[in-house]
Amino acid sequence: MLPSLSVVQYLLLAGVPRFSVQRLQAALSHCSIDQLLSADETQLQAWQFSPQQISALRQPNQARINLALAWLEQSDCHLIGCFDALYPECLRNIQRPPLLLFVRGNPALLAKPQLAMVGSRHAGLSGLNHAKDFAQQLAQQGLTITSGMALGIDAAAHKGALLARPDATIAVVATGLDRVYPKRHQQLAHEIVQQGAIVSEFWPGTAAKANHFPRRNRIISGLSQAVLVVQAGLPSGSLLTANYAAEQGRDVFAVPGSIDDPLHAGCHHLIQQGAKLVTSPVDIMEELGGFGGQSPLALPAVEQNMQEQDLPYRQLLDNVSYETTSIDELVLSTQQPVDAVLAQLTELEILGVVAVVPGGYVKLRRN
Amino acid sequence: MLPSLSVVQYLLLAGVPRFSVQRLQAALSHCSIDQLLSADETQLQAWQFSPQQISALRQPNQARINLALAWLEQSDCHLIGCFDALYPECLRNIQRPPLLLFVRGNPALLAKPQLAMVGSRHAGLSGLNHAKDFAQQLAQQGLTITSGMALGIDAAAHKGALLARPDATIAVVATGLDRVYPKRHQQLAHEIVQQGAIVSEFWPGTAAKANHFPRRNRIISGLSQAVLVVQAGLPSGSLLTANYAAEQGRDVFAVPGSIDDPLHAGCHHLIQQGAKLVTSPVDIMEELGGFGGQSPLALPAVEQNMQEQDLPYRQLLDNVSYETTSIDELVLSTQQPVDAVLAQLTELEILGVVAVVPGGYVKLRRN
Repeated sequence: MLPSLSVVQYLLLAGVPRFSVQRLQAALSHCSIDQLLSADETQLQAWQFSPQQISALRQPNQARINLALAWLEQSDCHLIGCFDALYPECLRNIQRPPLLLFVRGNPALLAKPQLAMVGSRHAGLSGLNHAKDFAQQLAQQGLTITSGMALGIDAAAHKGALLARPDATIAVVATGLDRVYPKRHQQLAHEIVQQGAIVSEFWPGTAAKANHFPRRNRIISGLSQAVLVVQAGLPSGSLLTANYAAEQGRDVFAVPGSIDDPLHAGCHHLIQQGAKLVTSPVDIMEELGGFGGQSPLALPAVEQNMQEQDLPYRQLLDNVSYETTSIDELVLSTQQPVDAVLAQLTELEILGVVAVVPGGYVKLRRN
Repeated sequence: MLPSLSVVQYLLLAGVPRFSVQRLQAALSHCSIDQLLSADETQLQAWQFSPQQISALRQPNQARINLALAWLEQSDCHLIGCFDALYPECLRNIQRPPLLLFVRGNPALLAKPQLAMVGSRHAGLSGLNHAKDFAQQLAQQGLTITSGMALGIDAAAHKGALLARPDATIAVVATGLDRVYPKRHQQLAHEIVQQGAIVSEFWPGTAAKANHFPRRNRIISGLSQAVLVVQAGLPSGSLLTANYAAEQGRDVFAVPGSIDDPLHAGCHHLIQQGAKLVTSPVDIMEELGGFGGQSPLALPAVEQNMQEQDLPYRQLLDNVSYETTSIDELVLSTQQPVDAVLAQLTELEILGVVAVVPGGYVKLRRN
């Protein structure tokens, strides 16, 4: 049976530096929350509180508390304390769970099975597409996609999830929820909170600070069953999230890519350390045990590749890459005359295997 | 102490169907080789020889033996029997080692530490480059590169090894050594036998047959300490080689790539089954225990990527891919005017980070 605390009580306790959920639980096994909050200095010293903690508890930052209470007055703004029913069990079991979460949007979403998706802020086009596609397909399977609302992979994951369902995504951020960081994600934040949720352990009024991001990352993995790293260089904040996930006993998945591309070096490093290589959402659904029987997801890769082998103009097709390939290159690499190359490309385009893009042709992706 | 057999004795035994090295060893623990070869039908029946085996032993295919003996008369043409000192110990320990090997070139090479490199016959340009680069760098480290002389990855691996040292590569083939398959590898075969070796368990005169390739593959892995699969689709002969390698207790390495490219599906499948993901020759040298101290190979990825982060025009650079990226695309993706994009590209080109190619620019590879 967990203790029941009021919003103000949580805010008072959250102001106490380095005061963990475990410590709070231990304290409340000896006294009531009222006794704790009204204890005098001598009593608190006897309970091993440090001078900083005693000062924070006896002279609380009332301005900050008032700001939080004012923020909480708004519609869709919530505080979830560590003993509240809506506080997710899986988060409570990590090493340093947050004492409380501020939530904008739908707090019930925190209890849903979540997959964290993280990756580079500088992701390339293919990484962004993968993030969007994985998020969309996994959200269609019932997973909630949790990420950090950063530029790049994070944003693509949120957007992909929103394509599947308006309530399919949670953003965990490193600032107070009275602001949006980065600023250009105002619209994304607006869309997420409609039926999803934005979550932070930081007080309203808190600006982005470098040391907040690792703290944010532990919550992203802590809320989730597993973490998928889509595209990440070395070093990378995404690897920190993956490390938290591993420490927290979560599965870590990583999407591989070209060994020539530094943006995949982080994913490859993770796979070498034991993360599971995934090539499609099916891999993840299989690992997580699926969500109710037959998966409507894409065909397994084997079947698709056998189809690919039946395509005409194999030699030409092998030379069209997934990024722009110019006609000049294709003439060079196939050693065929330009009109033959163009005729074959046109047929392949009709078959939906390649597409015209500025500067040449690209091979189209499998799904 | 292994028995000592003559070339003709090996050829006589090699004509006996399904007569394994283990069976030969068992027979020779009861009688001499001369007793075995001159035994009458009743005796052979008593020794559990089948009618087909008795017939092959008592009426040997003399034409085939004569052809083999004539072939062996040529310079650089050798027969290595399973009990010969030059027959590699690691091959003798596989489940069904070949009773003999025909070798063209340097038979002493078979005793050297070998890495098998295999992959798709339809490999793309990046796969061919990886095969060549890995083979060259690993050959420089002292490894002998063993492959199947097929089109695509196999050929690129042999060629890369030859760039390092003329004695750095062994081809194991699925035909008799009096012919070259595929025909267009005449020149490659010629270069390999100068100081390397071409190996086959098939009699001179044997043409390429589909069921010979899996038999060839078990020798490729059997000769090697480990197998590296560079680029392979699904299904793929390279996966058979990798399976033999795993059965034979060899390490299996695989190079990852884009999940959108079916040519990497086989590698990804292998990694999911437990193969080790490798991004550089250094990964392989580390797993195989190195070859004498400090490696002169490329810098580890972390250091290189940190340098990459210091480069100017990060936003532009992130949009230049490792395959041709057109100026149009870069103007679109960076939302910058074309003259600004061109000015930045010129600076990046001077820094050696990008290069001009037909149809646009490419990012240059790490090493």
